[in-house]
Amino acid sequence: MIFSSKLIEDAVQEFSRLPGIGKKTALRMVLHLMKLDTLQVDEFAGALTRMRHGIRFCKECHNVSDGDTCTICANPGRNRMQVCVVENIRDVIAIESTQQYSGLYHVLGGILSPIDGIGPEQLNIVSLQSRVQTHQIDELIMALSPTIEGDTTVYYIARQLKECPVKITTIARGISFGGELEYADEMTLARSIARRLPIDNYVNLHNS
Amino acid sequence: MIFSSKLIEDAVQEFSRLPGIGKKTALRMVLHLMKLDTLQVDEFAGALTRMRHGIRFCKECHNVSDGDTCTICANPGRNRMQVCVVENIRDVIAIESTQQYSGLYHVLGGILSPIDGIGPEQLNIVSLQSRVQTHQIDELIMALSPTIEGDTTVYYIARQLKECPVKITTIARGISFGGELEYADEMTLARSIARRLPIDNYVNLHNS
Repeated sequence: MIFSSKLIEDAVQEFSRLPGIGKKTALRMVLHLMKLDTLQVDEFAGALTRMRHGIRFCKECHNVSDGDTCTICANPGRNRMQVCVVENIRDVIAIESTQQYSGLYHVLGGILSPIDGIGPEQLNIVSLQSRVQTHQIDELIMALSPTIEGDTTVYYIARQLKECPVKITTIARGISFGGELEYADEMTLARSIARRLPIDNYVNLHNS
Repeated sequence: MIFSSKLIEDAVQEFSRLPGIGKKTALRMVLHLMKLDTLQVDEFAGALTRMRHGIRFCKECHNVSDGDTCTICANPGRNRMQVCVVENIRDVIAIESTQQYSGLYHVLGGILSPIDGIGPEQLNIVSLQSRVQTHQIDELIMALSPTIEGDTTVYYIARQLKECPVKITTIARGISFGGELEYADEMTLARSIARRLPIDNYVNLHNS
């Protein structure tokens, strides 16, 4: 693409570095910004730089945070005996958005993957151990991806914590709500049959 | 979506105001920016504000410009006798990117569309007339959309300029390169048969 303006070219260049944004989409965004008030564009740019300069990681759970401790860890209304172990902050946002979980989190920052050079040292596992040892935590809910790497990570953490009196659970696998039975993969279908629920549990779940 | 960080929430909010960007895509972009150096994010934000504050419109052709006159109008190597009339700056970028046109442009800023309240006064038609009257222009190439509104605009401009000794042409309509004949609409196909070319023109075009 040939632009007759260096200002537009630079802005398009920057936008097209974002994931999944090609030159044409970048141009569409730049032309959109061009039509806005200067004040609105200043706010847009300001929100990005403020975010990048101000963002911290919670010293307790490694979630993103505006200060030393994230709003979840700082909230006295959360159940401090339950800790949900997730891969990244995207998972925290997903679980928080269900508004059904009231415990704390622990963000690992990835899952074990020897091929990608990610071992236990690259993840926040030592801090998880010390959290379990120094705080009264009843249950660790492992909410990791149902892949070989995810299962390996669950298994590794469970082994590291086998001396600790903490219950380790994993989130349920099964057919999604609205999912068609015939399109489910065999492993999910098999697990959902093995872990079948009495019908009254099912009815309660549906009405809750 | 529930974010535990106001900084992230604000940045996602700003991104999701862009055209075609939903909350999930916005979050993906913000998390990408979070991983970059602060310097890179400052550059990104800087490119956007510099663009918005610095962008001008060329006083000759109404194309975007970094100064009073755009780089195309300021380029002494361009053919000043040819002016290509387009709807918007996106069309200028598209034609420039072909690297086949060496004349000047005139950006109308839209096309006539009474339903949307766009009449001749909303477009840069008066300035086109005065350009034709005060400069020596041989040919106006109308490169507008092949719609009723586009054709109406071409017809209107041609009528306004009927006293001027300027040749008015329109870009060729026909089957696209690589286009399948059977999927072409009837009007395009009919026009491409009516405007058929001698085979030697065709061979030259293909080899140029």
